[in-house]
Amino acid sequence: MSWLLIPRGSHFSLANLPFGIISTKTNPSPRPAVAIGDNALDLSLFAQKGGFDKLQDFPKDKISVFSEHTLNSFAALGRPVHRSVRQYLRQIFEANTPFPDVLKDNESLRQSAIVALSEVQMHLPMEIGDYTDFYAGRNHAFNVGVLFRGVANALNPNYNHLPVGYHGRASSVVVSGTPLRRPWGQVLAAPGDKKPVFRPSSRLDIELELGMFICQGNALGEPIPVNEAENYIFGYVLVNDWSARDIQAWEYVPLGPFNSKNLGTTISPWVVLADALDPFKEKGIHNDVEIVEYLREKREDNIVDIHLEVTLKRCNLRPGDFLASGTISGTEDGTQGSFLEQTRGGKAPLRIGTDDEERKFVEDGDTIIIRGWSGMNEDELVGFGDCAGQILEALPPRQ
Amino acid sequence: MSWLLIPRGSHFSLANLPFGIISTKTNPSPRPAVAIGDNALDLSLFAQKGGFDKLQDFPKDKISVFSEHTLNSFAALGRPVHRSVRQYLRQIFEANTPFPDVLKDNESLRQSAIVALSEVQMHLPMEIGDYTDFYAGRNHAFNVGVLFRGVANALNPNYNHLPVGYHGRASSVVVSGTPLRRPWGQVLAAPGDKKPVFRPSSRLDIELELGMFICQGNALGEPIPVNEAENYIFGYVLVNDWSARDIQAWEYVPLGPFNSKNLGTTISPWVVLADALDPFKEKGIHNDVEIVEYLREKREDNIVDIHLEVTLKRCNLRPGDFLASGTISGTEDGTQGSFLEQTRGGKAPLRIGTDDEERKFVEDGDTIIIRGWSGMNEDELVGFGDCAGQILEALPPRQ
Repeated sequence: MSWLLIPRGSHFSLANLPFGIISTKTNPSPRPAVAIGDNALDLSLFAQKGGFDKLQDFPKDKISVFSEHTLNSFAALGRPVHRSVRQYLRQIFEANTPFPDVLKDNESLRQSAIVALSEVQMHLPMEIGDYTDFYAGRNHAFNVGVLFRGVANALNPNYNHLPVGYHGRASSVVVSGTPLRRPWGQVLAAPGDKKPVFRPSSRLDIELELGMFICQGNALGEPIPVNEAENYIFGYVLVNDWSARDIQAWEYVPLGPFNSKNLGTTISPWVVLADALDPFKEKGIHNDVEIVEYLREKREDNIVDIHLEVTLKRCNLRPGDFLASGTISGTEDGTQGSFLEQTRGGKAPLRIGTDDEERKFVEDGDTIIIRGWSGMNEDELVGFGDCAGQILEALPPRQ
Repeated sequence: MSWLLIPRGSHFSLANLPFGIISTKTNPSPRPAVAIGDNALDLSLFAQKGGFDKLQDFPKDKISVFSEHTLNSFAALGRPVHRSVRQYLRQIFEANTPFPDVLKDNESLRQSAIVALSEVQMHLPMEIGDYTDFYAGRNHAFNVGVLFRGVANALNPNYNHLPVGYHGRASSVVVSGTPLRRPWGQVLAAPGDKKPVFRPSSRLDIELELGMFICQGNALGEPIPVNEAENYIFGYVLVNDWSARDIQAWEYVPLGPFNSKNLGTTISPWVVLADALDPFKEKGIHNDVEIVEYLREKREDNIVDIHLEVTLKRCNLRPGDFLASGTISGTEDGTQGSFLEQTRGGKAPLRIGTDDEERKFVEDGDTIIIRGWSGMNEDELVGFGDCAGQILEALPPRQ
């Protein structure tokens, strides 16, 4: 399908072409790229050498978006532009490309602009102004609700009526591979304690999530109608919203989680464009309640079917051992997206690997890797790349 | 005291010299300035014309911080630099300035760099990456707690042990004078209702707060000891954290306030530097509980004594009528910083003006102005300038 070797089963097939920000040893300046198979195409160099000259739809005075340090300016061009750029790049890489001169037969540009993924360093794809974290995984909300309030009151009265969300810390969103410190915080040492103690979190958890980048803003106070909302989506990444459950339990009333989540939020580095996931749209979980009209979408296939898996690597011990924890929306044992749910609040530890090692929560040195992909055909997978983070031991105290 | 006329009682005395971002008709590019009396000194022009050449301590290769569109780069230079810049500018404006050539006797620079405040447009002083909103006003927390949970359970168990806070929406922080739309949202129309309705908020409230800008970052995961924390404070502004109480009541469990506060947060435009408020530091409210060691400050005078007042202007009706609502930490009737508290959840409307007009919450067309200042000597007041915002009627619905 492509003149460039794309390994079978690659998450970065021709059907994907996700966008990210790379740097290399020879050019340490962060710049946009697309991933294809085991390679990245340096879009800064590609644009500079006239690679986009044959793309009619592109606003030529905006070509500098490919030399910036983030994807914000490219995203701001809007979905019709993302669509034509992605379709054009797909044509460029197709075996029977209509534009062979641009890259396929241009050995010098191929040599300079195509870089092995193993040689690139990934950066945050966008500068993040606000980070909003929703509570959209109904099974997760239900599971956690059962743990905290019992089955009868598991979901709060507002849950099925509106997208419950809160603001997370934008400045602690980090790109896959960034190690994070176990945080210190106030916790109640034993149930019933009245006074907190200050210590490293002992119930450090993961949260498996799907992240979404917005491409266009709206004027303050002017709502976006729900049926136009998808025009504002640039693309998707995987998210691990690390959560210190013992700190969270003490702090979260009445204003919500704060320090328990500020330690860091890991995202996968490649933004899978909204168009690439559109073929995998499906109908979501049925909502029993009648929602208010302004939230009713005409489109019924409004969720994305993505295979998700979580891997735990005990890096300092036995690289390669792993634990698959399954999808965000799982209802079966072993398919919950957090340790809190999987271990029922630490009461039912998970066996990992082959030597009877257990986990109630994340331990120092553990690396958590989230992977996700859509599609069945091994030559047309649309995936995200790793969303990986290692937990380092807490820093010693300092007054 | 100054060779420049500073009106008696001005909040922008020589003892203040707050920093902000201005633009003018003749130069629409936003740039740093200091306020003094009824004027602003354009620091961009002042620096460009050699105004800082006689300031020894200033890192000369950083002079471009005064030509930027925000104060972020100036703030990042750290408190010792802010201190020497402010002290130097004070000397420049003193009647017996040691550097008369720089401005006092330099008519051409005076004419070009000193601009009447009435001629300048103010902009957001800093680019805001994260907006953290604390719950530090104990009287407010208690008053609201009484309304929601009764006197016995007014403060949550964590309240006296840790600074309860949450993340607000950074992108909807606006500078004083920006009108805001009354928001639509899901509310329960009557107590006991199970299903929400979607309508413009009918319980729009204010929150009188003090805001703080951070000047220096820390590495992710490396805490700042409490006794070093004040080195990270750039300065202070007044804040009105508009709150739609009916939307908030329905949405806030379990993740905290979200849409109810996203409509906008108004801040005063001039950043009063931490040093300017240092003479007004006092001992805070006594905390009955023994807090965990890492939060214990050596310095006991760790709060700022500021006079605060709230004015409500019915702009479309009778400009000039007003209502003073008092300080953040008031315990007396009429000194609470929100309508929610003042009117006991709307049950006890406030009389405003002279013609028996009432307010339970903010009405369309109302302008709320918050003012604040420290000091008693009318020639040395340290104040913030207006933190003003008008509420426009809700937009008509659009599907």
